[in-house]
Amino acid sequence: MEKKITVLPGDGIGPEVVASAVKVLQVIGKRYNHTFHLGYAAIGGAAIDQFNNPLPDETIAMCEESDAVLLGAVGGPKWDNNPPELRPEKGLLKIRKHFDLFANLRPVKAFPSLLASSPLKREVAENVDLMIVRELTGGIYFGEPRKKTNEAAVDTCVYSRREIERIVENAFELARLRRGKLCSVDKANVLDTSRLWREIVEEKKFQYPDVEVEHNLVDSVAMKLITNPGQYDVVVTENMFGDILSDEASVITGSLGVLPSASIRGDQFGLYEPVHGSAPEIAGQGAANPAATILSVAMMLQYSFGLKEEAAEIERAVNAVFEDGYYTADLARHHDRVLTTDEWTDKVLNE
Amino acid sequence: MEKKITVLPGDGIGPEVVASAVKVLQVIGKRYNHTFHLGYAAIGGAAIDQFNNPLPDETIAMCEESDAVLLGAVGGPKWDNNPPELRPEKGLLKIRKHFDLFANLRPVKAFPSLLASSPLKREVAENVDLMIVRELTGGIYFGEPRKKTNEAAVDTCVYSRREIERIVENAFELARLRRGKLCSVDKANVLDTSRLWREIVEEKKFQYPDVEVEHNLVDSVAMKLITNPGQYDVVVTENMFGDILSDEASVITGSLGVLPSASIRGDQFGLYEPVHGSAPEIAGQGAANPAATILSVAMMLQYSFGLKEEAAEIERAVNAVFEDGYYTADLARHHDRVLTTDEWTDKVLNE
Ligand SMILES: CC(C)[C@H](C(=O)O)[C@@H](O)C(=O)O
Ligand SMILES: CC(C)[C@H](C(=O)O)[C@@H](O)C(=O)O
Repeated sequence: MEKKITVLPGDGIGPEVVASAVKVLQVIGKRYNHTFHLGYAAIGGAAIDQFNNPLPDETIAMCEESDAVLLGAVGGPKWDNNPPELRPEKGLLKIRKHFDLFANLRPVKAFPSLLASSPLKREVAENVDLMIVRELTGGIYFGEPRKKTNEAAVDTCVYSRREIERIVENAFELARLRRGKLCSVDKANVLDTSRLWREIVEEKKFQYPDVEVEHNLVDSVAMKLITNPGQYDVVVTENMFGDILSDEASVITGSLGVLPSASIRGDQFGLYEPVHGSAPEIAGQGAANPAATILSVAMMLQYSFGLKEEAAEIERAVNAVFEDGYYTADLARHHDRVLTTDEWTDKVLNE
Repeated sequence: MEKKITVLPGDGIGPEVVASAVKVLQVIGKRYNHTFHLGYAAIGGAAIDQFNNPLPDETIAMCEESDAVLLGAVGGPKWDNNPPELRPEKGLLKIRKHFDLFANLRPVKAFPSLLASSPLKREVAENVDLMIVRELTGGIYFGEPRKKTNEAAVDTCVYSRREIERIVENAFELARLRRGKLCSVDKANVLDTSRLWREIVEEKKFQYPDVEVEHNLVDSVAMKLITNPGQYDVVVTENMFGDILSDEASVITGSLGVLPSASIRGDQFGLYEPVHGSAPEIAGQGAANPAATILSVAMMLQYSFGLKEEAAEIERAVNAVFEDGYYTADLARHHDRVLTTDEWTDKVLNE
């Protein structure tokens, strides 16, 4: 197989974790006889510094020519006081919107060897294996009108039927491939957009009789994700709720540093990135945990290229390194030897 | 002291927990020589059944004549398919808006004797003592336009400067009376309403040089509330974020069944209610935990009547009963003797 991948290292620890993930990708390519053509481009703060634009046209053009995109992370204090249009996150929002990447998939699965780092009791966290499906290109993130004066401000949450249908279909399909359970999250007792959302889920469920659906309010799910996360299989929700709940869910398993994500649109194209941010405070020290980005490459292989075996091989290797007790600084406890980003990546490569 | 209190038992376990709290209120009145005049009125599902209106005019009139309101809980499956205007929650939203109860205070404090019921590790939950201050009468809950057709839906999040200023001032004042730390939560990297919110917090902070302020994004706080809840003192945020974060925070300490809330407006008037809902599945069985409602009465004594000593006395009694190992069903573990609502209330009264 031959594939073109655009690599967007971004800011902070982005370049470091991306470098690790690229090494893993190349080893997989060699082993399984695939050719991955990599092109590098700028996004976020790095792109603001170089092109005064968090998502330059050159970057868009290169992504358009590619089969998938691997992103590190964007943002940092350097650009925190920039005007909204010149902030690193704007690059992220724009690339999602430009490529219509409406489905953000965030798997959260417990690695038994990491549970000691979880704030939750072992018995609460140990059987967690859920996937949050967040709508990524609609809702209050992009709705118009939006306006701010010195006296008042307005944001608008809008959803069209089609926008809801496609994400809900996506979630039903995923649930069907997993344990067949779907939890749809809304605030239908208050919001009109949530009422439409709930209606559409009710309509769609007849096309997926093999999937068991429940509706739940966002405030209630915010509780149950902590009291009983093991009950969830696929959780689908709109953009803003998804932002909050997926970050909340990311702490269950003990490390943000191991969580990958995919942003897809229904065809093969997708953008893959770790859930963690750019962590500027540890950038350049070799202290970053590359696991989340390496696992994001595994998601790329699976979702964009259909390479299930190769993806599983990466997951197996990452798990084995954890089982052997090798950790980067974020996960290490007193008695562990702390590995640098490169040393830890080498362990994975050896596997 | 002589005070008028309107009691709104509501639905599900509402009447049971309210009955317990009223007993406690009366004992306190006798002991400290206060007269509390109680009037009962309907809200929620009970009011829909009786008056076809979740907040009848009679109820509003009685509350207007009162110094404070004690509410049980509203809602239940019986009314779940009613049209929006005839749903129990509408009564709650209307009473908040009618009385301009813009500040919802939700203290979350660990009872050492309950930590075994927490999903969090003991060392994570044990020193938690925070207060979430949620804006309660603005934002996307009440913004216009709001509209739903079969093809699309819209909700609007609006905040005026004045709406933000008053809740932020309230939070600064509370922080000053506590440990002097304020965390303001927004999504300023995406929302215009959040940018105005952040600006106003920045302006106000000069009037409270003794309070240490930080800004944090809602997704990030959703994580930190679980990984390190002990770091928070007062957390202030807008209506929708507050709904989600306060419910999330409610699981930290091990039981929703012990968490009170106050909804106030800056003068003495306020509405007090337990954080938990109407729990229709256990209604009428004597299985409800009245602690949250009893502690809501303590908040009433403190915030509406300025009776600090009496409030502290209630908190002490509740804590003592827990320390003695008496629990209702929601908190009991294998070896505990389970007390009914009335039996547990009697223990508190004896204290
Ligand atoms: C950086 C920010 C705009 C972004 C979001 O809110 O979507 C981030 O929090 C995420 O979840 O990817
Ligand atoms: C019942 C519902 C409308 C209400 C809200 O969202 O405000 C509830 O969740 C609460 O937090 O009091």
